[in-house]
Amino acid sequence: MDFISNNNGHLLSKMATNDGHGEKSPYFDGWKAYDSDPYHSTKNPNGIIQMGLAENELSFDLVQEWVVNNPNASICTAEGANEFKEIAIFQDYHGLPEFRKGVANFMGKVRGDRARFDPDRIVMSGGATGAHEMLTFCLADPGDAFLVPTPYYPGFDRDLRWRTGVQIVPVVCESSNNFKITKEALESAFQGAKESNIRIKGLLITNPSNPLGTVLDRDTLKTLVTFINQKNIHLICDEIYAATVFNQPDFISIAEIIEEEDQRNCNRDLIHIVYSLSKDMGFPGFRIGIVYSYNDAVTNCARKMSSFGLVSTQTQHLIGSLLSDDVFVEKFLVESAERLAKRHEKFTKGLAQVGIGSLKSNAGLFIWMDLRRLLKEPTVDAETVLWKIIIHEVKLNISPGSSFHCSEPGWFRVCFANMDDEAVKIALRRIWNFVLQSSKGVEEHAKRKCRNLQLSLSFRRRDDIVMAPHMMSPHSPIPSPLVRAT
Amino acid sequence: MDFISNNNGHLLSKMATNDGHGEKSPYFDGWKAYDSDPYHSTKNPNGIIQMGLAENELSFDLVQEWVVNNPNASICTAEGANEFKEIAIFQDYHGLPEFRKGVANFMGKVRGDRARFDPDRIVMSGGATGAHEMLTFCLADPGDAFLVPTPYYPGFDRDLRWRTGVQIVPVVCESSNNFKITKEALESAFQGAKESNIRIKGLLITNPSNPLGTVLDRDTLKTLVTFINQKNIHLICDEIYAATVFNQPDFISIAEIIEEEDQRNCNRDLIHIVYSLSKDMGFPGFRIGIVYSYNDAVTNCARKMSSFGLVSTQTQHLIGSLLSDDVFVEKFLVESAERLAKRHEKFTKGLAQVGIGSLKSNAGLFIWMDLRRLLKEPTVDAETVLWKIIIHEVKLNISPGSSFHCSEPGWFRVCFANMDDEAVKIALRRIWNFVLQSSKGVEEHAKRKCRNLQLSLSFRRRDDIVMAPHMMSPHSPIPSPLVRAT
Ligand SMILES: Cc1ncc(COP(=O)(O)O)c(C=O)c1O
Ligand SMILES: Cc1ncc(COP(=O)(O)O)c(C=O)c1O
Repeated sequence: MDFISNNNGHLLSKMATNDGHGEKSPYFDGWKAYDSDPYHSTKNPNGIIQMGLAENELSFDLVQEWVVNNPNASICTAEGANEFKEIAIFQDYHGLPEFRKGVANFMGKVRGDRARFDPDRIVMSGGATGAHEMLTFCLADPGDAFLVPTPYYPGFDRDLRWRTGVQIVPVVCESSNNFKITKEALESAFQGAKESNIRIKGLLITNPSNPLGTVLDRDTLKTLVTFINQKNIHLICDEIYAATVFNQPDFISIAEIIEEEDQRNCNRDLIHIVYSLSKDMGFPGFRIGIVYSYNDAVTNCARKMSSFGLVSTQTQHLIGSLLSDDVFVEKFLVESAERLAKRHEKFTKGLAQVGIGSLKSNAGLFIWMDLRRLLKEPTVDAETVLWKIIIHEVKLNISPGSSFHCSEPGWFRVCFANMDDEAVKIALRRIWNFVLQSSKGVEEHAKRKCRNLQLSLSFRRRDDIVMAPHMMSPHSPIPSPLVRAT
Repeated sequence: MDFISNNNGHLLSKMATNDGHGEKSPYFDGWKAYDSDPYHSTKNPNGIIQMGLAENELSFDLVQEWVVNNPNASICTAEGANEFKEIAIFQDYHGLPEFRKGVANFMGKVRGDRARFDPDRIVMSGGATGAHEMLTFCLADPGDAFLVPTPYYPGFDRDLRWRTGVQIVPVVCESSNNFKITKEALESAFQGAKESNIRIKGLLITNPSNPLGTVLDRDTLKTLVTFINQKNIHLICDEIYAATVFNQPDFISIAEIIEEEDQRNCNRDLIHIVYSLSKDMGFPGFRIGIVYSYNDAVTNCARKMSSFGLVSTQTQHLIGSLLSDDVFVEKFLVESAERLAKRHEKFTKGLAQVGIGSLKSNAGLFIWMDLRRLLKEPTVDAETVLWKIIIHEVKLNISPGSSFHCSEPGWFRVCFANMDDEAVKIALRRIWNFVLQSSKGVEEHAKRKCRNLQLSLSFRRRDDIVMAPHMMSPHSPIPSPLVRAT
């Protein structure tokens, strides 16, 4: 017998044969480039430095110390192994009570105890990744859409769309007002969708923002709450960077807003929070995602769906103990924020030395770097050209704005918390060298442009762009460390 | 502002508001009943004994011993904590190399090293639950269907159908030939679907079977392979009970069959294995699911989908070490099978003492108990009546055949490996008491029936039904332990 010739296009699902997973993006291409030539201080000092991963590795010493001091928290120590069976066999999708308690406690502490979380509403998922997909499955039918302000995390294209058949309608935000989400932008996206007969089921915001590193202010949050109530659509708040706020202003959670808000002004059934320990604690490997919905039906449905991506009970058990320890949690939150602030300052100051600005930010594990002036022209193509140079010649994997659906070319996300001080130094040196070289080119280019457009090269100084004064012109002195690029 | 009145039916997805999750089944109702009155030897000795959970808790002492003796395997011990950061931060969806190696090694060992598994084909998922959903998403579009022989695991209704929009077309198997999957039954289901314009994309089998506790023989496996090749549809083999085979005949994996089979007779691109450590090791809490596909495109697609349900790296790390230890693995497999055999024997013999038979089986964590003679009439309603009595009066949570889509009323799945010897004793006593009481009823009933139908009460003795000779008539002596039901 000969088998019928194999045509996977026909044998597999449409989903398996289309590109809906969204991996064909420079965001992921950059990771692949890094994988083929990863920097290592001794083994591959000329390799690509990974600055495309929003990881938080600055405070692991605190966790490690706690773990060693609390052998009872693990089922793999002599002290804790007698619980091995009970934990390994536990498969209730409600989760271990101590896990839910610990997570609810932590979520409150991260928000300065200004909001309370009910352990019985904690629903597990496989990371925030799984949480977003679960919520989408709960809230929207195939063909429906969610509004998502740009720039946004590239993974949303996979999480919200791929297996659900749901669409994303971008809400275009612009640098001219620091990428603020305005009522006008929301209305315009909503009306645009309406005209295309697309049913909008909700609005997804990321607060603090990835990639911006900024937090939403109270007024904006209230505007969003009013907007979604008027339209009777859902509001999903991805707050997975909540504990990465390292400077003023404080983080304001949607949980605080709705606790303040008169119930008549806000239908709580429309509000859902996505959380995870991947960023705030730096545990992306543990796949601890949380759906926290104020809607009972959604909580129930999501819990049933969580069967597809529960958190390992081994991990639940450990995390339950860790996050119930208030002394540890409080110390960790303070210390982690301080370290992020320090790293952020070092990094932005280093960039400023060569005149590179970034959006003023106080949160996140990255900065939103402004390289608009290094573009040959303000297009995505030019941005891609620059990005390829940065990856392959400067040897830094950073992520271009286009991969975040940014409406304006020339912005790049640069992660700063996934490496040690030494790597930061080297990364900065590489940037300095590069900018020095391209400044010459930019100068030429700018001169030509000036001649044509009667514009001066000097950049308008703005409050929201961090820029060192001495680098406002390309004639500034070369900072010392860039004698030799690694 | 008043918000538009909340109508979840409109606000949420169809998925969230229908019953597609399949939890409205006696299978799950039984769990709920148990939860409201759980047996405990001292605290609630009259509570319901949980025999509805296919858990394997007989060999945890071996694992616990290994864990304590191998502190390096955990990131939470003084010996292993220096790897905490590296493991917690690892988020590559390919999985830790040592995990893939360990699992591939274990999968081979479980199959007596008669098949080899390539670590690079190991794709993670959130349990077999997540694996089944992932494969369905990869292989079928909404509206398509899979053939599934009955009786089958109730979770398939959720896993294959709920979020995918795919259907299940049952392949009806019957007790008359020990629920064997025949070519005729397959053809008939396939043709039936065709006539209803339903596109069949694959066949899903569970080998060893849940709920039957039997293994498929070589001939049947070859028939299946020929069938799916002729139809050019997929074959998904759920082999999550592979290591629970405790008696002859040996387990034969589909992996062995296709390694033997001429490639011209079998298109490997059609073959996919679902595996998990929930049953063979008894770790359902750890959510270690595996998709092992021989189709490259499916492997790639499933790996991308695995982002929604990866295994915690804390658990990957532990399991990688555990399953790479051949001395442990070999000892565990032998010992676990022996303990299951012993428990199975004790249990079936105990039932036989009161004349209760079950399908002859050599695998699994359950028996398929034959209570047909206790039904008032051969209907699902009568089965449900009996089941309710067993839960609420006999106080055993067992699962009725209807929840497994069994075509013939009167069969019940009874789990025997999720409890200690003491609980088994009590469960048996309760059954004895119950049968003794109902035998009287049955006798009355049978006498009446005999008068009508000219049939004798004696049950035909069959090789595939385990039944104690002295209980072939309801007049047998009462076994001693049933003096008092707990
Ligand atoms: C905004 C945002 N949401 C969700 C995720 C996914 O997080 P997790 O690792 O918990 O799946 C990320 C990861 O980068 C993110 O930045
Ligand atoms: C046949 C079968 N497949 C899959 C599963 C789900 O297993 P897991 O715990 O790995 O999700 C079960 C659990 O009972 C099962 O019996």
